[in-house]
Amino acid sequence: MTRNDKVVAIKKPATKRGEATRRRLLAAAEAEFGQKGYHAASVSGITSEAGVGQGTYYLYFDSKEAAFRALVADVSVGVRRAMAEAVSGAPDRMTAERMGLEGFVRYVFEHPHLYRIIQESQFVDEALFKCYYRDLAAGYAAVLAQATDCGELAPGDAETRAWAIMGIGHFLGLRFAVWDGIETPAAVMDAVMDLLANGMAPR
Amino acid sequence: MTRNDKVVAIKKPATKRGEATRRRLLAAAEAEFGQKGYHAASVSGITSEAGVGQGTYYLYFDSKEAAFRALVADVSVGVRRAMAEAVSGAPDRMTAERMGLEGFVRYVFEHPHLYRIIQESQFVDEALFKCYYRDLAAGYAAVLAQATDCGELAPGDAETRAWAIMGIGHFLGLRFAVWDGIETPAAVMDAVMDLLANGMAPR
Repeated sequence: MTRNDKVVAIKKPATKRGEATRRRLLAAAEAEFGQKGYHAASVSGITSEAGVGQGTYYLYFDSKEAAFRALVADVSVGVRRAMAEAVSGAPDRMTAERMGLEGFVRYVFEHPHLYRIIQESQFVDEALFKCYYRDLAAGYAAVLAQATDCGELAPGDAETRAWAIMGIGHFLGLRFAVWDGIETPAAVMDAVMDLLANGMAPR
Repeated sequence: MTRNDKVVAIKKPATKRGEATRRRLLAAAEAEFGQKGYHAASVSGITSEAGVGQGTYYLYFDSKEAAFRALVADVSVGVRRAMAEAVSGAPDRMTAERMGLEGFVRYVFEHPHLYRIIQESQFVDEALFKCYYRDLAAGYAAVLAQATDCGELAPGDAETRAWAIMGIGHFLGLRFAVWDGIETPAAVMDAVMDLLANGMAPR
């Protein structure tokens, strides 16, 4: 356990009101870090955006870096929750894959600073950036492995598939949500799903 | 044509010796920007790494930003050349896809600063970053469209496939070359190629 983990653990608010303030600070941190970048962002920018005093800030976070770390952890939870919600009720695994990718791009569309925050995390602390992706990949690979065991997917390596589909999703989010400010066009999603379902070797 | 394009065009060296000095400056810029990041990097760091005087530097580049822009353009050419060399002699398109991905990861392995430089380019000038990926994708999609026309690939959207495979390559390079300092393990490449060739729908 690092010093920061400990601080985050200690500073986790116990009350609903505390949790609401923490969420307001995290939303403000998302705007501040996302708009200015890590180095130009400041605690006073976050507190001003959140409409709380600096004294309140330090009840929740020890430093600028502590808020950034908490924000990356929160993005990770948010992405996974959004994708889990997006795929709920999918009739089969390939449909779930489509709904998951669509849900990911929609989440990026709704959180336009997400890419900048995650990309910057590697310069703040490479371990933070690695863990973000490795946690996502591990959870996703477990789902794919389970689906493969149940015959919902053809046999194949779940970990490699998880990273491959994350890579596909990475550029869908970048091209459409970040660059063009739109969700994924249906024709593009059809083509992605054809590739994922059937590959591209001559048939 | 922007002001910077003009400067780069004017300052292109005419002699072989001039080209050798420019290449030495670009290699030094790769080390300087890659190790320190754009903001901490300096012209004096580049000239000191290259072993040339600042007067010489300004014969080639107008500013720190001009060298960075030239470096991103050079990385783009380098990645494409490395991949073209990697796939030359491939007996069929799916084998070429494998050799291309392997060649990309090898290039990243040999240029460990490449990811940092490309990721930082979006903060220096987002157009630079977009053009890097859009140029790569356009060239790659043209190759895939041609192969599809010739029946070497199953019918499918070449542009979507190009971005999808670039996404797969992006995380292969990150996981293995950048994080672990190795080339792609053969078993992982086998699993990627199975996904690309056959997809993962139940068969």
